[in-house]
Amino acid sequence: MALKSFVEVHPDSHFPIQNLPYGAFKPQPTASARLAVAIGDCVLDLSEIAKAGLFNGPILTGSDCFLQPTLNKFLALGRPAWKEARVTLQKLLSSTEPTLRDNADLRQKSLVPMNNVEMVLPTEIGDYTDFFSSMHHAKNCGTIFRGPQNPIPPNWFHLPIAYHGRASSIVISGTNIIRPRGQGYPAGDSPPYFGPSLKLDFELEMAAVVGPGNELGKTIDVNEAADHIFGLVLMNDWSARDIQAWEYVPLGPFLGKSFGTTMSPWIVTLDALEPFACDAPKQDPHPLPYLAEKISKNYDIALEVQIKPSGQKDSSVVTRSNFNNLYWTLTQQLAHHTINGCNLRPGDLLGTGTISGPEPDSLGCLLELTWNGQKPLSLNGTTRKFLEDGDEVIFTGCCKGDGYNVGFGTCAGKVVPPRD
Amino acid sequence: MALKSFVEVHPDSHFPIQNLPYGAFKPQPTASARLAVAIGDCVLDLSEIAKAGLFNGPILTGSDCFLQPTLNKFLALGRPAWKEARVTLQKLLSSTEPTLRDNADLRQKSLVPMNNVEMVLPTEIGDYTDFFSSMHHAKNCGTIFRGPQNPIPPNWFHLPIAYHGRASSIVISGTNIIRPRGQGYPAGDSPPYFGPSLKLDFELEMAAVVGPGNELGKTIDVNEAADHIFGLVLMNDWSARDIQAWEYVPLGPFLGKSFGTTMSPWIVTLDALEPFACDAPKQDPHPLPYLAEKISKNYDIALEVQIKPSGQKDSSVVTRSNFNNLYWTLTQQLAHHTINGCNLRPGDLLGTGTISGPEPDSLGCLLELTWNGQKPLSLNGTTRKFLEDGDEVIFTGCCKGDGYNVGFGTCAGKVVPPRD
Repeated sequence: MALKSFVEVHPDSHFPIQNLPYGAFKPQPTASARLAVAIGDCVLDLSEIAKAGLFNGPILTGSDCFLQPTLNKFLALGRPAWKEARVTLQKLLSSTEPTLRDNADLRQKSLVPMNNVEMVLPTEIGDYTDFFSSMHHAKNCGTIFRGPQNPIPPNWFHLPIAYHGRASSIVISGTNIIRPRGQGYPAGDSPPYFGPSLKLDFELEMAAVVGPGNELGKTIDVNEAADHIFGLVLMNDWSARDIQAWEYVPLGPFLGKSFGTTMSPWIVTLDALEPFACDAPKQDPHPLPYLAEKISKNYDIALEVQIKPSGQKDSSVVTRSNFNNLYWTLTQQLAHHTINGCNLRPGDLLGTGTISGPEPDSLGCLLELTWNGQKPLSLNGTTRKFLEDGDEVIFTGCCKGDGYNVGFGTCAGKVVPPRD
Repeated sequence: MALKSFVEVHPDSHFPIQNLPYGAFKPQPTASARLAVAIGDCVLDLSEIAKAGLFNGPILTGSDCFLQPTLNKFLALGRPAWKEARVTLQKLLSSTEPTLRDNADLRQKSLVPMNNVEMVLPTEIGDYTDFFSSMHHAKNCGTIFRGPQNPIPPNWFHLPIAYHGRASSIVISGTNIIRPRGQGYPAGDSPPYFGPSLKLDFELEMAAVVGPGNELGKTIDVNEAADHIFGLVLMNDWSARDIQAWEYVPLGPFLGKSFGTTMSPWIVTLDALEPFACDAPKQDPHPLPYLAEKISKNYDIALEVQIKPSGQKDSSVVTRSNFNNLYWTLTQQLAHHTINGCNLRPGDLLGTGTISGPEPDSLGCLLELTWNGQKPLSLNGTTRKFLEDGDEVIFTGCCKGDGYNVGFGTCAGKVVPPRD
């Protein structure tokens, strides 16, 4: 029989006792951030659980990691600590365990309705890296930007391509995204366009949150890389396609991306995702030995993008994809990142790149869905080539278990016009 | 008559009272970092000056910004605070001012021989951006990587191209650089090379240290951008050319750069550099209005690169360049960075890109100096196509004033083989 919590959890909830994703919240807008796990419609305040002395396993007893405003200290402790915390919290929240269930005072202090709190970034992000690991996305973008001859560059099948992203502009779900200004690709010999981006897009991504990481000059073996991944979030890597197309040669994306990246508030742990692991696609050519892993895993996470235009009551689903569309695995991405000795730090974020599938309705961005604006998308009585001011873009991600979900909640943001 | 300090300063010193660059040091290896300015062969411990109540201007009285282990809090205060600190410190160190000169106890506590301390990174670096602002470098790299037809991409003359760099692997001068492993460009149809980089290179750069910065969604006007630049450092953006050439299409440099970036310990302020300001080159085409500045400034900073092979007593000068070879100014770089609303934070680093001049002996990296290894460089009885293990690369930068220097000291690092 499935594990149950004494906290009521609706069968459709993303946050049953099997999940327990980590986040950070403010009880009031002016308060300091506190760490939490989600359970049903509540957040469980981990600082209260820690102060009550209930993290009493060998690693976490006496630790102040849950009294911090971010998860970084907990992330640095590594998988044994993460497993211990999960065991402690699943026991504490289970329907058969009286410690918290029957302690009205502690329940009152530690279980807070999610609606009453403000979620904030759960980690301090030192560096943010964005990969490019969906073959379908790579092929479509290559065709659009460089033409149908060899759309996928020859290096793509040998290494998980990535670029450094901007850490400062990562925001929590719910933050408005201000339409960026910049230079766009000129037509013919005319000077470049300048103004608010005319081709604002979303990118459906997920991102791995790094655990202990490595010292500068050391590498992480691909078969040990999973121990350096705490969990996953949904991520919207908003992109201004006109700015990007003009600036990206030869050094890659810069201002076309750095105006904002949205992450979902709850980090779902790899331990919670383990029941949804599945085989990663067969790789041909066979990767170099440092990327060849004994077990090559993806996860079956259903992903959906909805757009809610300003003034409309309902949002429309514009794409349905799945995390398992990725060609390069999370562990290959992480091992590749360190093969040159580059150091990863707790809290670093590794984006997967846009997760497009092979079907026309599984493409992860408007660039692909509308073929760079050539085929407008119909949207509940209106159409879109790219995003308009007032559009809200909402991602969801969910694993369907036997009688329960392990979900990510939503990753949402509304486009607003530039400030003066 | 030039301002003099009561601290003895050799005429060749980079650090007379006209300079007073900021850094951070550890008095002993296990101690916390403290902030300092350099004066002659000493560091002046700013925490001691602050504790003695000698920062007594309107902005800094009572501030704890000099009791921090990094300069970030001071950087956030902005130019009025920086100017006040400069006035205070120049007065305190001047030969005619008795406060510190005649206080043996405070002198003893606050003036420490530079040789007795370990310099550490003076800032916490949230994000590191690297520009590409020397036309000579852009032209040479374009010719080498993509051929002599249109070596400079058309966007280059319209915007200061840049990419996001890796913040975690920025190290202080003197740190060994571990030769990275990675994939190199394959010959013909063969699989990519894997192993220690065969084309390890230096890149002669400088970098701006960001002051207050901007909120996400706001921009910084190019004519106000100088108020957001605290000062400059020397920077070696070590590059593995074989890794870079294979990985950089289409998303730009990644592992070819992220294994290490060296910065010099002393941040020379724009106020100290002001006497060495000079006109920036005329830009054709005229930049878009958001990049058109009323006063377009470069600085006359003589730059030199030396290589000291393992076992050799002497180093050889391999290039002599100048900061004024940059086409895009620091203020244009910073304004461009924020035009899309991207937020800059105190301590962010904006690298200039490799500073190559027009002459064959003013090229800022071995890629250019040896034309990708085709023309080995002669080096005191030996030759180099790229860097070998044991090579120490030493940058210096200096402005020559009337009877004094405003210098940057050195930015040095030795190449060592990969760890097991």
